[in-house]
Amino acid sequence: MTQVAAGIDIGGTNTKIGLVNREGKLLKHTSIETTAYLEVDDYFAAMAKAIKDLMSDLGSDAVLNGVGVGAANGNYYTGTIDRSTNLRWKGTIPLAEMFQKSFNKPCLITNDANAAALGEMIYGNAKGMKDFLMITLGTGLGSGFVCNGQLLNGHHGIAGELGHTTVNINGRYCNCGKRGCLETYVSATGIRRTVYKLLADHLEPSELRGISFEDLNTKMITDAALRGDIVAKQCFEYTGRILGMKLADAVVHTDPEAIFLFGGLAQAGELIFTPTIRSMEENLMPLFRNKVKVLPSGLQNQAAPILGASSLIWDHLSR
Amino acid sequence: MTQVAAGIDIGGTNTKIGLVNREGKLLKHTSIETTAYLEVDDYFAAMAKAIKDLMSDLGSDAVLNGVGVGAANGNYYTGTIDRSTNLRWKGTIPLAEMFQKSFNKPCLITNDANAAALGEMIYGNAKGMKDFLMITLGTGLGSGFVCNGQLLNGHHGIAGELGHTTVNINGRYCNCGKRGCLETYVSATGIRRTVYKLLADHLEPSELRGISFEDLNTKMITDAALRGDIVAKQCFEYTGRILGMKLADAVVHTDPEAIFLFGGLAQAGELIFTPTIRSMEENLMPLFRNKVKVLPSGLQNQAAPILGASSLIWDHLSR
Repeated sequence: MTQVAAGIDIGGTNTKIGLVNREGKLLKHTSIETTAYLEVDDYFAAMAKAIKDLMSDLGSDAVLNGVGVGAANGNYYTGTIDRSTNLRWKGTIPLAEMFQKSFNKPCLITNDANAAALGEMIYGNAKGMKDFLMITLGTGLGSGFVCNGQLLNGHHGIAGELGHTTVNINGRYCNCGKRGCLETYVSATGIRRTVYKLLADHLEPSELRGISFEDLNTKMITDAALRGDIVAKQCFEYTGRILGMKLADAVVHTDPEAIFLFGGLAQAGELIFTPTIRSMEENLMPLFRNKVKVLPSGLQNQAAPILGASSLIWDHLSR
Repeated sequence: MTQVAAGIDIGGTNTKIGLVNREGKLLKHTSIETTAYLEVDDYFAAMAKAIKDLMSDLGSDAVLNGVGVGAANGNYYTGTIDRSTNLRWKGTIPLAEMFQKSFNKPCLITNDANAAALGEMIYGNAKGMKDFLMITLGTGLGSGFVCNGQLLNGHHGIAGELGHTTVNINGRYCNCGKRGCLETYVSATGIRRTVYKLLADHLEPSELRGISFEDLNTKMITDAALRGDIVAKQCFEYTGRILGMKLADAVVHTDPEAIFLFGGLAQAGELIFTPTIRSMEENLMPLFRNKVKVLPSGLQNQAAPILGASSLIWDHLSR
């Protein structure tokens, strides 16, 4: 018998669906267009059909243990997606209940960064750890906190929002409505904003001067820095300094064993890790210094969001 | 039979010792001078004798369930006091082991702010809550985080240090060796520093101009503000604005149901609560707004540190 959990990663454009075994191997996967369904019931039916088709492909000895879903604004306690800003269906979507009725198996939902944190704990570099922070650096900055072996959900199910802590109350405008949020500096979008700030402030020549804001991406900035471009290098210093400063606050709050960085910006390697670690240590009170590891995620591939979502089920069954 | 737990509050000058029942009533208490003992063994013997004497006073049907200790730098995991800066005995003091051997009962140690948090949960205004933050405003700013019904200890046993998060990296010098820590602004000492800053910056007359830094205390600033003193009022605005800003970070990290303020500064009531709550809400991303209560502690009396320490035992026995 092949024991599997379904993992679903709901994005604004695409929904990725996969079957994952207990060891974190993605056995089958597919994708549907999130935007192709006018009604949420039709969207749900398409996801349910996709899971059934994947199970058939896997063979008759496969056993589905449950469905885990990662989605922005996914609420673990209520099993719903609430007031999503990137989906067309408004209000509250009771997705866990819909899956439970359809499959008669546990369905658990959480936000995408919490799912990534569980994925890191169940399959990745946080195996065996009970206290760690997961930072996902994508278009925004997501984070999931694991404390005492459990995902930190908080009273309203929305804990672990490092991305919207304040760097500077008069700082950059954020999609959330505030100013100066960490994710306006530290994310794929944030680092592009920093390139433009530095190009505006400084006189140095830079290969980035020829690229429009829309065309610019983290890979280009990384490659420029590796070629010695001064502005690109400063850009990582600037980003790491801010990330380290805010990680220091999270460290004294939660005292983790390690912090994992996931996503495109983390793939810049030493360019981002070195200034981040330096700044974090400088901003820590001495009692906390040289205790917390800052490490790359062990889930560095495209399947990570599916793996993270599926890990909700293994975590649930192990309790 | 009267079931009691001993609670010990170790301060740099005095050590307060009491017997507390399950309902949080302080039945007997005494105090010894922390500084009167050259050797830690003699200090320990004096504490043990005090507990035995209090038990005798209570009568032969009293049952001791254990000894809880609150102390700066108390480590819950190791049961030790590590590198204390306010005690004369250096290095690591294995106090839990010493009490366990002497009484053959559980002995648990934690830092004073964590003890206060447990006290709030077991006896105070956090009864029934599973997610809350306790902020103790004394000479410094201590904090204890309760997440998912458990004290957040972290990987090294030192979580919940809100007082040493950074307000301003170029800010006030802190005893911890850093600059700009929250407790240099928000504490009995911090607000005195703020009075002096405002007196330096502004021209307004103020009754506080006649008081030396050494003589100044929170009560004087509170009374002046209540009499309409502009500098004293600004001082609470300034302090609340900074506290609210950093509470907002702690809220998005941990998503608590409530935050409790304890200690002299909290007794200033609306003077400190109003600007703190306003600033916290302004600094929260909209998803978190109007969800978290900021409340006075239910342990507003001199016995609170003993109660907090004793609650470690009831918490332990309930697991």
